[in-house]
Formats: sequence, structure tokens, C-alpha cells
Amino acid sequence: MKPFMDEDFLLQSEVAKKLYHEYAEQVPVLDYHCHLVPQEIAGDIHFKNMTELWLGADHYKWRVMRSHGVEEKYITGDASDEEKFHAFARALPKCIGNPMYHWCHLELQRYFGIYETLSEKNWKEIYDTCNAILQKPEMSAKNLIKMSNVTLVCTTDDPVDDLHYHEQIAADKDFGVQVLPAWRPDLAMCPEKEEFVEYMKKLSAVSGVEIVDFSTLKKALANRLDYFAERGCCISDHGLDYAEFRPVGEEKMEELTKRSLAGESLSLEELLQFKTMVMLFLGAEYKKRNWAMQLHYGAKRENNELVYQSAGANAGIDCINPKGFVADVADFMNALNKDGNLPRTIIYSLNPTDNALIGTMIGCFQGDGIRGKIQQGAAWWFNDHKYGMEEHMKSLGSLSLLGNFIGMLTDSRSFISYPRHEYFRRILCNFIGGLVENGEYPEDYELLGELVKDISYYNAVNYFGFQL
Amino acid sequence: MKPFMDEDFLLQSEVAKKLYHEYAEQVPVLDYHCHLVPQEIAGDIHFKNMTELWLGADHYKWRVMRSHGVEEKYITGDASDEEKFHAFARALPKCIGNPMYHWCHLELQRYFGIYETLSEKNWKEIYDTCNAILQKPEMSAKNLIKMSNVTLVCTTDDPVDDLHYHEQIAADKDFGVQVLPAWRPDLAMCPEKEEFVEYMKKLSAVSGVEIVDFSTLKKALANRLDYFAERGCCISDHGLDYAEFRPVGEEKMEELTKRSLAGESLSLEELLQFKTMVMLFLGAEYKKRNWAMQLHYGAKRENNELVYQSAGANAGIDCINPKGFVADVADFMNALNKDGNLPRTIIYSLNPTDNALIGTMIGCFQGDGIRGKIQQGAAWWFNDHKYGMEEHMKSLGSLSLLGNFIGMLTDSRSFISYPRHEYFRRILCNFIGGLVENGEYPEDYELLGELVKDISYYNAVNYFGFQL
Amino acid sequence: MKPFMDEDFLLQSEVAKKLYHEYAEQVPVLDYHCHLVPQEIAGDIHFKNMTELWLGADHYKWRVMRSHGVEEKYITGDASDEEKFHAFARALPKCIGNPMYHWCHLELQRYFGIYETLSEKNWKEIYDTCNAILQKPEMSAKNLIKMSNVTLVCTTDDPVDDLHYHEQIAADKDFGVQVLPAWRPDLAMCPEKEEFVEYMKKLSAVSGVEIVDFSTLKKALANRLDYFAERGCCISDHGLDYAEFRPVGEEKMEELTKRSLAGESLSLEELLQFKTMVMLFLGAEYKKRNWAMQLHYGAKRENNELVYQSAGANAGIDCINPKGFVADVADFMNALNKDGNLPRTIIYSLNPTDNALIGTMIGCFQGDGIRGKIQQGAAWWFNDHKYGMEEHMKSLGSLSLLGNFIGMLTDSRSFISYPRHEYFRRILCNFIGGLVENGEYPEDYELLGELVKDISYYNAVNYFGFQL
Repeated sequence: MKPFMDEDFLLQSEVAKKLYHEYAEQVPVLDYHCHLVPQEIAGDIHFKNMTELWLGADHYKWRVMRSHGVEEKYITGDASDEEKFHAFARALPKCIGNPMYHWCHLELQRYFGIYETLSEKNWKEIYDTCNAILQKPEMSAKNLIKMSNVTLVCTTDDPVDDLHYHEQIAADKDFGVQVLPAWRPDLAMCPEKEEFVEYMKKLSAVSGVEIVDFSTLKKALANRLDYFAERGCCISDHGLDYAEFRPVGEEKMEELTKRSLAGESLSLEELLQFKTMVMLFLGAEYKKRNWAMQLHYGAKRENNELVYQSAGANAGIDCINPKGFVADVADFMNALNKDGNLPRTIIYSLNPTDNALIGTMIGCFQGDGIRGKIQQGAAWWFNDHKYGMEEHMKSLGSLSLLGNFIGMLTDSRSFISYPRHEYFRRILCNFIGGLVENGEYPEDYELLGELVKDISYYNAVNYFGFQL
Repeated sequence: MKPFMDEDFLLQSEVAKKLYHEYAEQVPVLDYHCHLVPQEIAGDIHFKNMTELWLGADHYKWRVMRSHGVEEKYITGDASDEEKFHAFARALPKCIGNPMYHWCHLELQRYFGIYETLSEKNWKEIYDTCNAILQKPEMSAKNLIKMSNVTLVCTTDDPVDDLHYHEQIAADKDFGVQVLPAWRPDLAMCPEKEEFVEYMKKLSAVSGVEIVDFSTLKKALANRLDYFAERGCCISDHGLDYAEFRPVGEEKMEELTKRSLAGESLSLEELLQFKTMVMLFLGAEYKKRNWAMQLHYGAKRENNELVYQSAGANAGIDCINPKGFVADVADFMNALNKDGNLPRTIIYSLNPTDNALIGTMIGCFQGDGIRGKIQQGAAWWFNDHKYGMEEHMKSLGSLSLLGNFIGMLTDSRSFISYPRHEYFRRILCNFIGGLVENGEYPEDYELLGELVKDISYYNAVNYFGFQL
Repeated sequence: MKPFMDEDFLLQSEVAKKLYHEYAEQVPVLDYHCHLVPQEIAGDIHFKNMTELWLGADHYKWRVMRSHGVEEKYITGDASDEEKFHAFARALPKCIGNPMYHWCHLELQRYFGIYETLSEKNWKEIYDTCNAILQKPEMSAKNLIKMSNVTLVCTTDDPVDDLHYHEQIAADKDFGVQVLPAWRPDLAMCPEKEEFVEYMKKLSAVSGVEIVDFSTLKKALANRLDYFAERGCCISDHGLDYAEFRPVGEEKMEELTKRSLAGESLSLEELLQFKTMVMLFLGAEYKKRNWAMQLHYGAKRENNELVYQSAGANAGIDCINPKGFVADVADFMNALNKDGNLPRTIIYSLNPTDNALIGTMIGCFQGDGIRGKIQQGAAWWFNDHKYGMEEHMKSLGSLSLLGNFIGMLTDSRSFISYPRHEYFRRILCNFIGGLVENGEYPEDYELLGELVKDISYYNAVNYFGFQL
């Protein structure tokens, strides 16, 4: 029997251990998709206690607590920090098989040197110990990132953002970690949202382009793309509720844009057309700038109105949307591609049953002198667990070239979520080690070591073209 | 190599063996969802031979025989009982990997003391031996239940049922097993069915409420809910062919109800509206009475008209319906929840690719002071096999709190189907044991033993609030 | 650790090894569904080098190269054969977990005696060695088939084909391998295709029946069915983009046929009706002739217009179509069955998430005195990898009778793709061996050996009724 979460955690073969310890563990972390708050990095914040650090904004943990029957008061309500921590500690032992159990204990091990398992029995002792440690200067936001061996992170930013926190962070020459913006223009494509008209005004203001029709909308967006590019951005990110492909002519698009700007509502069909045309424009702009485009879909959000009213968005009340889009995304990519406008693209679906669909679809658009130009993004959000990652690797390996995979991202706003990269790498090394142990790939450490280091780090560096 | 189906069947690690033998095996069986016929229990029936016991009503076995090419005459037709048993015995060895192979041999082991494998070679000997044993008094319906260490079963009952067999069973103080009704009002929600108008008359008669509109329909149903509650019912069960969420106003619903009562047919859209409004009413009533609500969907029924004509419903001619409903069910639950009307709910889909969808959806509605208030029901019917249960556990563990799972049900009308609980528990212990052996959960038998006993028995007891 | 791809490749238990070497390996290969070009067999062609043999028409390998960033010039373009081989050799080591890695090395081992792994380091040496071997007389098309221990292959043929190459092949009494046609009438059901009207003229000409309405269309098809049957055909093959079941009356169908013949375009709904009626006719004709009917769906084809323009169809730019049809196929089968017209049927979906849907659906139409009358076809095309085949076996075993499975097909136009049967058999023996090792099936080699030989070979022989 393997001991609980020791240095060989999740490594079930000798090859896996060697691959992890001699290769995967040796390369830094690049987190190309996260939700760290630039202001918190720039301010190099401290956390007053474990509840703020762990439970302040982590909807994964909130879900665990709710599933254990914990009342909202002890989750997002006005109970004391100590009560909240206690409530979480009571729920945790029921999380057998859940990544939360591993993430929490990896974080306790790596950042606090605690190797016990958290439960009803020792919660107070662990709470106090961690709180004391959190007071130390080395536990600031920047130090937590640095001690995690991170070289670069990409945050998630709105086109109207002036990115001044990114500038502040970049100006701190002692920090040594690149914090780049990523472009997430979801609102600019959503005339169905109440804030759309107001947002267009903001976009006009920051871009200096008065948006009155589709061509000025494009001009304003292009202006901001340049602004972002000047600040190191090379990645876009689209969270799609709709990904139907419905191209229309310029004339129709002008009409849709003007009506949207006037605050009129569009029919569903028209909305899909508007979104399609903005996406076609942006895709081509990304290609021009040599950016990568991330498309993710498959979330059905804010399902519980009661919790939404009390706790707001990102409160752990989302689920997988069964609606799939792979056929439409294929048509969208073809439309870009036939005009030479298809950028590097990363597709994520929250629905794990899309694995094979995406795995086969990306294969239709590869080539162009770029290794793994079209990627299936890592097992993400609800799939970011051992089985989810294994299924992703099996599927990607079977249907594409696993060796060209750009690997893991945290998608997190926590400063101590980097053990998820460790978790991924252990699972990766175990997967590959298993193939070798079973005679399915040669025990050639030159090839294997390169594969593992590439997937852990270098593929992403090269894919995005980061200067490190 | 492990011997064939010995006492450590399916237990692949030492931890698994310990968990099963010292914990799981030690707790009784609670079968909260089955199709036992109350009259058969009340009458304490005997079976004349193995064909009647095994092949009289078991559509799983019929499918096995048909898949082996057996003609209908030897399945549901007029061949002799001996010929039918022989035909089944010929097919069984081809069932490698099928739960039927294990269920049959578990039943032969547990109820008949037979440890051979049934085949063409020994079918006659086994048939005769079993038939002789079946003549013994201890092989009556009640005795079979008792010898299976069952404390409580819930049958499946129609709202118009007077439940007098349940009263008879309860009056037998020597029996010692609770047999409670469960409320299955499918027909009351199906104006599309020919029998609807007639059924409404019956419902009027038994409830003493003349159903003439929606409010009297609600009153009649509430009356029967109380009637059922007085007889120990605390579980409802809905088999949904349609689960689209289409709420309408009271006025429209009055119109739909009156037209339905008049025998007019509704459009599909109107049907969905009618069903939605009845479900919203019933959900709130369940919550009021502290009942649990079971929703299951995903079956496409009676696909083979030829067999349906000769053998009727439940003849093994159903399949999985690819149509999924998780998004609609989420909206339905939200509608109940925002008004404080969401009862404990158990969701089952027959489609195994819904696992992750349901696993993430239930997480949106948890809390409320109830451990695991919203459950993903056990791997059911076509998923009730080793891989189906393992996939369910992996999914539920990864996405929710496995420790709060209320566990297994037989969904069976057989008096010797309880080894399916044993089968489940072995798979559960093997799954959990595997996690421990792999260092993914501590080898702490206080925690593990509680987890295993809870999932096997106590979680269900507490969830439904049974008095045992 | 198991050595890389030795004689016990993929066989992880002693039972698996015994089953493979003593049973599976001992029976010949029957390839009932492939795309070998009859002219190439009849002409007993030679290959000028490995690039022609491996990369001339293999879209699987083209996808591997594109996924590695290789430009189209080195794939389907005008680079030299040596450059193309080199480009492929560079990509191959990244294929960890991909069946391509195993297929290539199995082919190098079995046909060229090369046990090294192909990479950048040795590509030239391997290229030259293989090219030299390819010059030998024993490397002709017919000899490659014979040395693969093949007894029978079915090609894929159009109803208008005169099958004279089949006649030529049959006339070569030294060859000793049966090469039978299979009937693939896709174009006859596709009025939406530009070529339809022209095709109807060809069909009229070869059948001697002037097609002017539905009844003459049926007559012409029946004529060709007889022509094919006289030449040994007993299998049909339908690649369905649409499988919706929309039966209409004879009158409507006459109208649709006449309009189609006149080159008018049908609405989508009308197209579905036309296709449904042709399928119902053909299904009954197959039943009459005791043929088997293959239905496969789930491909979204020619997604990349750029590549399609330069490289044509079957160029590796297809993907899985998320659109499923299992409910419609069930209704179609029921319609045939209730009139006594349902032939042996094999259902394939390219979407692996359809496994359980198909596994339960086929169970509704079994029986009729035929073992495994309705089959779920082997894991196919994008699913033809270790996990895909294992998932298929798990699903089929759990939901049906694995023992009656008719097994593997290559679906290939390569003369050296027969190791895919070996690959399948190893995975099958490993799967079954695992069940035995785990005590889930008795270690009875009489039963097991028969199971394994049946699935590898004899089930297909008996199912199709081949005379060997």
C-alpha cells in the first residue's frame, strides 16, 4: 500500500516516479489561464486567516460545504471565520475521491508544512497554525507565486481595462514573474446583456473610437487589441454560452449592430448572427497579431436564484450545459481557415462527453507549420480531477498527438492553487509511466523526459511564444 | 489469480476485503425503491420452480435469451418451464462481463448453496436441485426477504391504490420487515394516455374530491398524499418521458386541465405545460410533508411492437433514450427552490453519459441543513453493472460528496434480488479500497468504516427519516 | 515492466497470454468490411516504396503529420517521397498513446522484421531497408493478404459496379482468398447530391430498368442486388449522414422520386422521407436474400475546405458528428421487424458516447433463432484504439452477450492493415483474461477458448454464412 499523499503520490510505477521526479518536477510553472486579480498582485496582499485564503472566494469549497448540508450562513453568510473553517473541516472527510481532498492537503503540505489530514478532530489546531504562518512576510501574494516556481501567469482582462495594475507589476523588477493580461471580450459580443449599451460607451471612450456601427466597433476593438498587445497580451479567451455558427452579410450585420447600440433587443437568431460576425472578425485579428484564441463552452450558469441573490456570480451554482457546439465550432474554424485567418486555437468544453468530438475535430485544422496548432484545452473546472484528466489524456493520446499538448492551467483566483499543476503532472507521469510499464511505448528517457517536460512547461512556452 | 466468485469476489485489495467483511457486510439491507408486488408479500407466496422464480417476470433474463437467438416461444411463449430453463442455461455462459452472470451465481450461492457455474452441462441437475429447495417452507416470499437481512422495502404504488395489502403486511407482527408504499403518480400527469379520463374518475372516487379543474385535481392528489403518508409513505417516484420545464399561469393551466378532463388532446407544448404545473404542485407538497422526490428519465420504451403485442409492457424491449433533461430539471428545481418548496430530490438518468451533468447540477441546489439533500441516484437498470457503478462512483466522488450517497436500490420485483446490494457493496468497497491502497485517502478505519456503512445503509435511513 | 511490443504485447495476465497464443492467434482473419481496391488486388500490385505504401492514401497518418505541424506539401503535396517519410518519422514519437504508434510498429515487425522504433534517428535506414524488401515478389498485394492468414475479405462496392475485378480475382485459383463484394448504395439514396440524376441514369443502364418512379427504382435496385448476390455478396453497408425515421405513403414517395429524378431539390423533411422509404425497401430486400445490413453514422465530413480542394475526399478532415440517431434507428428497425422484414443488422456509431445507447437498443430486436442477430459493430475508425475497443467490450459485455460478438474489421484500404485484427485480439484476450484473473468468470479454457476463437473468427463466419 502506498502511504497517503507522500512524495510519490499518484505515481504507481517506477517509470512514473522517475518521470515525475527527474523531469516534470524540474521545470517551472506557466499558468496561461487564471483569474488572479491584478490589483491583489500589485498590492502584494496578505491574508488575515485561512478562511479568507481558502473560503473567501472558492466556489469549489462552497459546493463541498453545501453538499454536506452546511447552511449558507456558514458559507457566504455572516458566521465567523472560525465557524466557517470548522464547517468546512467537517465536510472534507466525506470528499473521498474528490480533488478537493487532494488540493487541500497538497496546499497544507506545500505552503504550511502540515502533513496531517484535516478533520473535525484537529481543525482548530490546523486553523491556528496556518493563521500564524499567514502572518509571515513570505506569505504575501507575490511571494506565494514566487515560491511556487512560477515564471509567468496570464490574468483575465476586459478590453476596456487600462491594465495599469499590470504596468505596476511589470515595474517591480524584484518580482521576476511575468504577469500578462489576457483579452476576454465576452461583453462586447453580448447585446442580450443589459450592460451592453453602457459597455459600448466605455469601449468608445477608452479606444477613442465612437462606436456607431460594425466598422467602428471593429475599429475600437482593434485599437484595444493593439493596446493589450503592447502590454504583452498574446492570448484571448471567450466564454461562449452560444457558439452556433450563423454568418450573415455586412449589410445585415450593420443593421444588427445599430439596433444593438440603440438598445433594441435582437431575436435569438439575430443574436447568433451578431456573435458569429464578431467572432469571425476577432479570429482574423488574433491571427494577424499571432495571438492564440481560447474558446470554452459548456457551462449553464447561475442556476440557483436564491444563492445568486445572496452571493452573486461565481458562487458555485453553475453546472455543465448539455448543449454541445463542436459541429458549429468546426464550421467557424473552417470559415476562418479558408481565408487564411485561423489563429492558434484552444477548445475547451465543460462536458466531458465532448472529449472525442473535440479530439477528432481539431485534427481537421492542424498543420500550417505549427506543432499542435489547434489544441484541446486541459480538463477544466468540473473536469479538473484525476479521472477527468486521465480521460482527457486517453482521448487526446488516442486521437491526436499527446506530445504536443500545451498542458495545464489553474483557471483559479487563488494564490496557492499551483499544486494543481503538480497534481496534473503526477497524473501525466503516471499515465505515461503506465504505457511504458505495459510495453506500449519504449523506455527511452530521452524521448520520455522531453515529452514530459514539454507537456509540463515548454510546449506552452513555445506555443504562445513567450519570452522567458 | 482470484478464484471465481469466492468470499472475496470483486475485492481486489486488502483494504477492500477489510472494508467489505468488517463493515459493509455487517449492516442490513434497506431497499427504498423496488417493484415487489404487495399482494405477493401479503400472500407469502411460494414458487413452483426456478423458471417461475427466475424467468417468470425478469426482462433482464429475457434479453439475454433473445440476444442468444432464443425464440420467443422459449422466453415468453408456451414452451415448458424445463425447456425455458434449459434455453437460459445455454445462453448464460456467453454473458461474460454481464451482471446477469454474477447475479445468477450469487443467487445460486446465497439462496440455494450451489457454487457451480450453470451451463449446458449441468442445467438439469441444478434445475432439479433448486426446484426441490423451492418446495421448502423457508423459501416463501417473506422468508426470502427476511433471510436477506432486509429491514425495510418501499414498493411502487399508484395514488388510487387503497394499500390494503400494505395494511395486511403491517399487521403481521412476526414478519419484522417494514413494507412501505411509495407514491408513483405517473398516470395523473399524462393526459396523452388513453386511460387518463378514466383514471381521473378513479382518483375522484378514492379521494372523495370530484376533479373538475386544476384546483380540484390538486385537492384530490393532496388527499391521496395524506392517505399514503398515514400508511408510512415518504417517497415519491416519477418516471418521466418528458421533463421539459414549461411553467404557465393558473388560467392557462385551468384551461389545459379542463380540456384534458374532457378527453381533448393537448398539443405537445401544452402537454409539457400541464406536466410542469403538476410537478411544481407535487414538489411543493412533498416538501411540505418532508418526503423525498425521485425523478428518473432516459428510457425509450416498448420499441418492439411484435414483442409488445405478445408479451406486453416491461418485456425487455426498452432502451436508453438519448434525449437528456438535465437543464430543464435544473430550472424546475430552481423554481421550487426559490419559493422554499424544494424537497429532498433524487435524480436518475438511464443514460450513463449524463453522470457528469447530473453530478454538477445537483451541486447547485445543496445545503439547507440536509446532508446530500439532492442526490444522484444509484447506477440503475441498464447501468446496474460493475462498470456502470464504478463510473457512477467516480463521477459522484469527483463532483460531489460520495460520503453522503444514499446508495443502492434493486428496482426489482424479484424476492431474491438482494444480492444486488451485496454486488454494489463489494464494488463500493473495492473502489474505496483502491483509493486507500493508492495513497489517495488515509487508511483510517474509523472514517472509512463509517463511510462504507453509511453508504451501504445508514445514509438512506437518515435521509428518508425511517423509524427502524 | 513488460518489454516494448514483444510477443506478449498488451497481454497483462497469464490467462490473457494463454488465450491469445493458444486460441486467438490460431484462427485465420476474416475482414468483412474493408476498402481494398479490387483492381489493385486483381492486378497484384507492388509498392515502389514505404511512402507509397504507408502515406499514399492513409488519412490517419496524414492527421498525425498535420497535428505535428507538418505542412501540406509534405503530406499530400509535391515534396519527395523521402521527405514525406522523414516528416512522418519525426512526428511518430509524439504519438504516445495513439494506435498509430502501435500499428506502425506492428507492421514493421510483421511485414519487414524490423523491431526498432521509428524516429528521427533511424528513419533513413528503416526507409531504405523497407524499400528494398518491398521490391521482393512476396510483397505483392495478393501475397501480403495471404501472408496475413486471411481467408476472406469483403470490399465496398457501388451498385452500378460490374464487379469484373472480383470475377478476375475469383478466377485466380492459386490465390485462395475469397474477395467478395459488399453493396454500398449511398448515392442511390441521396437526391441532395449533384450526381444523383446522372447516377440514376447509370443505374438504369446497368440494371436494364428505366428508372422513372419509385417502383422502377426499386426494380432496378433489386436487379442489382441479385447481380451482387450472384457474385457472392451477402453484406450491405450504409454510411448515413441522416438517419431520421420519416415514413410516408406510396403516393408521396412517388412524388418525391419523380421530383428527384427531374433534378428538383427536396426540402430537408422530404429528403428524410425519401431516404426512409428507400431504406425500408432495401432492409426488406436484404432480409429476403438473407444478407446482413450495416448501418453506420456519426461522421461529419470534409470540414476543412482548403484541404478538401487540394486533397479531395477521405483526406483526414472528418470528425465525429455529435448528432445521434439511436432513437430513429430503433423506430426504423421496429418498422421492418413488425412486418417480418428485419435482416441481421450491424449498427456502428462513430460517437463513442453512443455505446450504451446502441448496446441497449439492439437488445430490443434480438431473437429469431439467430445468435446475436443485431450487433453493435466493432469500435471503428476514430474509436479503433485500445481505450475505444475496451470501452466497446465493457459496454457490449455489460449490456449484451459479448460471446456472440462478430468482432473486428479493418475498414482500411491498406494491404498491411491486418495487424489491426491482431491488435483487437490482444485487447480482447487481455479484457477477458482480466475478468478471469479477477474471479469474474471461471478459468474454464473450454468455454474461454471457444469464446475467444468465436469472437476472433467463427462468429463472423457463421453470422454471414460464408462458405469457407
